[in-house]
Amino acid sequence: MMRRTNKWSKMKHNLVVLSFFFSSLNLYAQEEQTRNFMPVPQEVTWENGRFDIDQNFTLSLHGNFDDRLYGASQRFLRRLQERTGVFFEQAYVNESHVNQQAKFIIEVERAGVVKLNEDESYSLQVNSDQILLKAKTDIGAIRGLETLLQTFDADRKGAFFMTANIQDSPRFPWRGLMLDVSRHFHPMDVVKRQLDAMAAVKMNVLHMHLADDQGFRIESKALPKLHELASEGEYFTQDEIREIIAYADDRGIRVMPEFDMPGHATAMILAYPEMASAPFQYMDKKPDLSPEEKKKAYAEMNVEHILERHAGVFDPTIDPTNEKNYELINLLIDEMTALFPDEYFHIGGDENEYKQWADNDQIQAFMKENDIPDHHMLQNYFNTKLLAMIQAQGKKMMGWDEILVEGLPKDAIIQSWRGKESLFEAAEKGYTGLLSNGYYIDLMHSVDDHYTVDPLEGGEQLSEEEQKSILGGEATMWSELVTKNTIDSRIWPRTAAIAERLWSSSSVTDLDDMHRRLDVTSRTLEEFGLKHITQPNVILRNIARSGDIAALKVLTGVAEPMEHYNRNPLGLMYTMQSPYTLFADACIADAPDARVFRKLVEAYLAGGTSKENEIKDWLHFWSANHEAFMKLREHSSTLAEVEPLSENLSKLAEITLESFDHSKAIDQEWYHEAEQFYYEARKQQARTILQVVKPMEKLFKNNTKVLYAKHTTSIPKIDCSFSDWNIEDWSLFTSEREYVGGAYRTDSAHYALQWDENNLYVALRMNNFKISADKKYGDALGNFIELIFETEDQSRYTYLLQANNKSIATKEVNETSTSWKNKIKSKVIVMGTLNVQEDWDEAYQVEIAIPWKDLNSKFSDAIKMNMVIHEKASADEDLKFDYLIGTSPNAHLILVE
Amino acid sequence: MMRRTNKWSKMKHNLVVLSFFFSSLNLYAQEEQTRNFMPVPQEVTWENGRFDIDQNFTLSLHGNFDDRLYGASQRFLRRLQERTGVFFEQAYVNESHVNQQAKFIIEVERAGVVKLNEDESYSLQVNSDQILLKAKTDIGAIRGLETLLQTFDADRKGAFFMTANIQDSPRFPWRGLMLDVSRHFHPMDVVKRQLDAMAAVKMNVLHMHLADDQGFRIESKALPKLHELASEGEYFTQDEIREIIAYADDRGIRVMPEFDMPGHATAMILAYPEMASAPFQYMDKKPDLSPEEKKKAYAEMNVEHILERHAGVFDPTIDPTNEKNYELINLLIDEMTALFPDEYFHIGGDENEYKQWADNDQIQAFMKENDIPDHHMLQNYFNTKLLAMIQAQGKKMMGWDEILVEGLPKDAIIQSWRGKESLFEAAEKGYTGLLSNGYYIDLMHSVDDHYTVDPLEGGEQLSEEEQKSILGGEATMWSELVTKNTIDSRIWPRTAAIAERLWSSSSVTDLDDMHRRLDVTSRTLEEFGLKHITQPNVILRNIARSGDIAALKVLTGVAEPMEHYNRNPLGLMYTMQSPYTLFADACIADAPDARVFRKLVEAYLAGGTSKENEIKDWLHFWSANHEAFMKLREHSSTLAEVEPLSENLSKLAEITLESFDHSKAIDQEWYHEAEQFYYEARKQQARTILQVVKPMEKLFKNNTKVLYAKHTTSIPKIDCSFSDWNIEDWSLFTSEREYVGGAYRTDSAHYALQWDENNLYVALRMNNFKISADKKYGDALGNFIELIFETEDQSRYTYLLQANNKSIATKEVNETSTSWKNKIKSKVIVMGTLNVQEDWDEAYQVEIAIPWKDLNSKFSDAIKMNMVIHEKASADEDLKFDYLIGTSPNAHLILVE
Repeated sequence: MMRRTNKWSKMKHNLVVLSFFFSSLNLYAQEEQTRNFMPVPQEVTWENGRFDIDQNFTLSLHGNFDDRLYGASQRFLRRLQERTGVFFEQAYVNESHVNQQAKFIIEVERAGVVKLNEDESYSLQVNSDQILLKAKTDIGAIRGLETLLQTFDADRKGAFFMTANIQDSPRFPWRGLMLDVSRHFHPMDVVKRQLDAMAAVKMNVLHMHLADDQGFRIESKALPKLHELASEGEYFTQDEIREIIAYADDRGIRVMPEFDMPGHATAMILAYPEMASAPFQYMDKKPDLSPEEKKKAYAEMNVEHILERHAGVFDPTIDPTNEKNYELINLLIDEMTALFPDEYFHIGGDENEYKQWADNDQIQAFMKENDIPDHHMLQNYFNTKLLAMIQAQGKKMMGWDEILVEGLPKDAIIQSWRGKESLFEAAEKGYTGLLSNGYYIDLMHSVDDHYTVDPLEGGEQLSEEEQKSILGGEATMWSELVTKNTIDSRIWPRTAAIAERLWSSSSVTDLDDMHRRLDVTSRTLEEFGLKHITQPNVILRNIARSGDIAALKVLTGVAEPMEHYNRNPLGLMYTMQSPYTLFADACIADAPDARVFRKLVEAYLAGGTSKENEIKDWLHFWSANHEAFMKLREHSSTLAEVEPLSENLSKLAEITLESFDHSKAIDQEWYHEAEQFYYEARKQQARTILQVVKPMEKLFKNNTKVLYAKHTTSIPKIDCSFSDWNIEDWSLFTSEREYVGGAYRTDSAHYALQWDENNLYVALRMNNFKISADKKYGDALGNFIELIFETEDQSRYTYLLQANNKSIATKEVNETSTSWKNKIKSKVIVMGTLNVQEDWDEAYQVEIAIPWKDLNSKFSDAIKMNMVIHEKASADEDLKFDYLIGTSPNAHLILVE
Repeated sequence: MMRRTNKWSKMKHNLVVLSFFFSSLNLYAQEEQTRNFMPVPQEVTWENGRFDIDQNFTLSLHGNFDDRLYGASQRFLRRLQERTGVFFEQAYVNESHVNQQAKFIIEVERAGVVKLNEDESYSLQVNSDQILLKAKTDIGAIRGLETLLQTFDADRKGAFFMTANIQDSPRFPWRGLMLDVSRHFHPMDVVKRQLDAMAAVKMNVLHMHLADDQGFRIESKALPKLHELASEGEYFTQDEIREIIAYADDRGIRVMPEFDMPGHATAMILAYPEMASAPFQYMDKKPDLSPEEKKKAYAEMNVEHILERHAGVFDPTIDPTNEKNYELINLLIDEMTALFPDEYFHIGGDENEYKQWADNDQIQAFMKENDIPDHHMLQNYFNTKLLAMIQAQGKKMMGWDEILVEGLPKDAIIQSWRGKESLFEAAEKGYTGLLSNGYYIDLMHSVDDHYTVDPLEGGEQLSEEEQKSILGGEATMWSELVTKNTIDSRIWPRTAAIAERLWSSSSVTDLDDMHRRLDVTSRTLEEFGLKHITQPNVILRNIARSGDIAALKVLTGVAEPMEHYNRNPLGLMYTMQSPYTLFADACIADAPDARVFRKLVEAYLAGGTSKENEIKDWLHFWSANHEAFMKLREHSSTLAEVEPLSENLSKLAEITLESFDHSKAIDQEWYHEAEQFYYEARKQQARTILQVVKPMEKLFKNNTKVLYAKHTTSIPKIDCSFSDWNIEDWSLFTSEREYVGGAYRTDSAHYALQWDENNLYVALRMNNFKISADKKYGDALGNFIELIFETEDQSRYTYLLQANNKSIATKEVNETSTSWKNKIKSKVIVMGTLNVQEDWDEAYQVEIAIPWKDLNSKFSDAIKMNMVIHEKASADEDLKFDYLIGTSPNAHLILVE
């Protein structure tokens, strides 16, 4: 039944374009209020006019402001020209252009300072003949320029801004992006274009994670071995850092450095081994490394200074008891606080597992001497020392949430990566903090996951003051699996949605509208040279060894890189030097076609049967794709790992198409194979997950939800013996395979239906369902099965079967539900060694005769039949239904002769 | 008749994919010998095995070499991993990896030096179990690494190198790319990726054009106003220059600086006005600027230091008579020769138009005093001074070919931009030189134009020694119309073909094979982050305001930017700050689909009628595209200028499709409109040219080459009166519109044919043909018409009509041709005032009866009929036929009842 339906493979070529077609749906559709904004401003009143953009566009700056406004205005003009193709007469902005009659007037009260809590508010009045942007600071004006560019539109007649009245200011003062330049180094051009993109979505903090186990990435004149020995030549010079800071300052963005200590310090310790808490030996304590792997790693090195290549948590930790270390760190802090003008200085502090401290007798002795009760407090001792150095330079210390222990001075600021709970806890204890948990963009979650994380949601118990101490959030771009080539598609466009969460009102939450605006924003970000849209194609051309990558684009349209840390199990599959030019690197976190398809299926299942043809077009499209894929495969060894994925997609699409044929539903062999195939296709291939499996499976389940009841003239005895049934095809209830408690549920129930003029007869055998009538523990006790019938008038009738400790009872009426009009004839037996404590039994077997009149129905095919299985979590809880493990198809009953 | 054939617009979607289909023809086809090489090595012997690439690939370096070989080997490993997706056990190359059993052994005799004439030869032996690369220098080894990467291949089984034995060395020692960073600045990342790409195709000189009218782009500590006042902040710091030089050195590439003097020096003079030959006033002598334009320009400036914004040749010129200037220039030369280690130093010297010198009395006096006869020699005086400074630093001076005047010392080196003649002249005079004429990649010519330029071709008269003095060539990337975003698609892939011309044997000339290999090379260059493939799509998405740019890709598939300097007439349409995000900027010099179509049409016209369906598929595809285009157009004002182009393409495709219907050929109204339309469609739209017009027109001409002769029973009188002809549709001979003497020819001739059993009757009226029997001048005298018949046996019969000074004579037999067997009945008259001197007459009118037997044919439809019009160039030349102004269709005669 897995045969290919070949008539479609011939039409592959005209189907390739469907992707264009589908993805361009609602191409220019715009919600009245949010249009193309990202982030959405606080208050927008649209007028119904347009400000036409032509070559006479002029811009004039008024008031007091920093020079950065000239640059920002200049860039604004340039971007506007580049969008419109209009050659402006005024291509420059300088003092000579001050003109009250200019088409675009910017008025600023004072020069802004790039620091936390600087005023970023602005108002924007777009009239049909003139635009007025007012702001307290030039930084606010820069935010307003981005908003104006987001009101840009065009039609046949020309380019224009929609007339509007906008008042805007940020919800949170700290809207950051953390860039990990240690694991993989990301050079100047990468950093600069991130700053451009950040400014475009009104972000205001670039947090540079400059030092970690895998590299120290900044020139230190005080401790030169840091960059000389622990960067392999890939580091920022101090001139470059100054250039980054100036570039960021021009865009109203702070730059905060982080030097992760005392853990995550392998690179520092590589340069200055005397700082370590244990003699430095590369990989000596690498977790989970086999002896062979270690041997190989050593053989490869054979030189003294080689950086850590793997991802993970490593042992090398700075010795907090060695006073000399504080001298070195003080030199570094003095140097770096001078280089970075920002008020905040981040010391990391995360994931110190204390291994080297525990193993070091001298450290243990020090703790005893100094009454330091545990390693947490020892790290606090270390942090406190650093805090003093940082404060001595007039700065504030920030750290990851591990630094929050008893005794941490209130001046320290907490960046929460572990969860909002720790953030709220910090706030309640009087600390200031910001949220990164939920904004880990390296984990390749859908943008929906990030967008729905609100730093304050769930913290309603906090006082207004405490709420204010939560400054905002930061998207964190950890770069273990990200190179300078792929980083753009990992940061963008998802980070724009996080930027909106941190700027816009908490009431801006519509996911569909966010996606619509994110698409526009994503394209617009290409203005800055970002490669998030282009680089995946570059990778695919390389893999395909061809310029014709249509068949691969079909796959990246539906496959997403494995989420969380799953792509790189234990941090051992990849090293920092592995090729990141694989199929998974061309996939993005929100596979675009998968989302379109999921929405289509949702609409279809909610009754939008008009979507059927569109759904089938997609399925035909995917079904035909594997043949095109295989043409590329013949000339590419890199595609070997992708071949199963491609084959799965086409096969699944075929099966799903087949399931639209209702006659398939009673072909049990077909059904079982198909079911198994959906299950298998959920697994990773080429370190990616096919995101259309679930919606396809939903379609499949929906399509096979037909119940056939056969007419019988010989009334079955209700005795739990099915010998008097003449059953050719059993039907099947299956679990939806929700992942529960560490495993997918595999419960299922075979059943058959018969009918005569008086009754509907049900034969039911609950398979593979571990039940024991006399066990003392486990999930078997107190289990229920419900059979639910829903008739044309939408009355529900529930038939409940319960297994208790000693016996199987039948209950014809579920007290909590509509009652049956008559006693229903039924019998239930347990197949197996009932009441033998040591074993699991095999199954229930059930036989029921339900009078039509009790169903308020007669010979009806308008009955839906469901089955629900309830389980208890433990034997101790007697009546609590902990979870629903399976819902049978909400199927349509068909009475056949 | 311009009606849209709507049945096709419905099929647009499945046609969109044709572009994929067509462009992927011969996707993996490879010529046995040249495979994917670019440049092709001197000697290649293929073995029939394969060296399989797996994780156990190892590389070991032997002999004496510079550290650059570690870097190059490391990059080789990285690129190989990134192509194959294989994770090598050996990811690094250092001393620890020396191993005679390594899979890949590199043996080098000595460290190379990055200088002219360094040894770049290598030999490469790829066996199935081991690879051996031998070279005298590490630079040769680096060239060999690129060759090895070009033997990379893959199939289902895996990735491999083809086994081979290769001996290679360059034909020319100087293979350069000149990068103009003055007009538009191109920052570090742009320069670095050009260096990577250059190395990939074995180029060895980066020529940095650092100073021109529009900007001085390098930090000068000696004359800091140069970069401070004349760069708008866009310049290379000296640290950056050192970084570029080191990066280039690592890749075996020299970096030569150019400071253009004494002309093209507006930027220098802006910074140091005291250097000028006339008081500096911006734009004061801007050629061709209207008073309004000047006024606007001044109004915009209003500040002292603003860079020249336009392209062209400007007046500001350094005063060669001012000794102080030499002090300043000497400071600059001392500083820059110290910074750039290369032996060569380029002083520009081009396009000095001497205006300011001629207008400056003091300069004129100086010339008189010093016996300097003309401005050429004055510039030579200037050059000689610079030469001494350069030589004092131990360097050699290079200049554009204007510097070559009497008295130029032989040490100076000539870079020829004006033509090979000046290069050969220089060689004959004993100078060394290199060629850039023919390699002006900024002019957007087809790669074919560059590839077919051989520096030595045509210089056969040169002695071997003189030939050796021609060092090679340089592709020149002038950047008036090129930004950092678009430059990659202007340089690549065409420059790879120039690199091959300069490296490979002169016998490597096959254009089709070059194109095949160029496609592969182009994709491979994406490894270095080059945007030549991706950036056009970025531009199109911006223009379309959509991610769905399929309709625009159809257009960029067939449209090319205007060639030569035509895109920017007089240098005034664009400024350096204009938006270069227009449709033309997304088009490339070799529109890919246009080339495919041209080849198809050529094959078809050469008798490959099997191509008809493929041709029609393209035409249907284009015909349907305009509708898709217009959907984008509704939301884009930038597309306004593209709309006529899109409409033209669709209309032309329709007309060309229609022309396949032979009955159309006798519809004169249709024919005229169509002809006019092809003519109009040749014109630029959106500063691009539709490159499929000509092949479509060829098809049209071919398809309409059907002659219909009607059967008649009433024999016409041969009296030049057509009243006894019953003609409904006249046919038409038309000129092929070759561009002759400043205008397209519009000559045409109406004609009709009739036949009976005895004769073929011809009625011919030569229209619109300016003839005067008694003019003393002009092109009318001595004109000829030839009617040529070619029969089945391929005999040719020519009927000649001649107009002489006084009368029209007929000649039945063209003496130089096959003779007619009988006297043919005919009559010719001139319509108009014959013999009135003052006017032009209207036309010839001709009537002929040609007996079938004289055509050696009877009732034959195998006759082809041509008409040729000859014209004399002038009245004075009596018998010389200067040019063929038109050839009628070589049409097939159809006898109809």
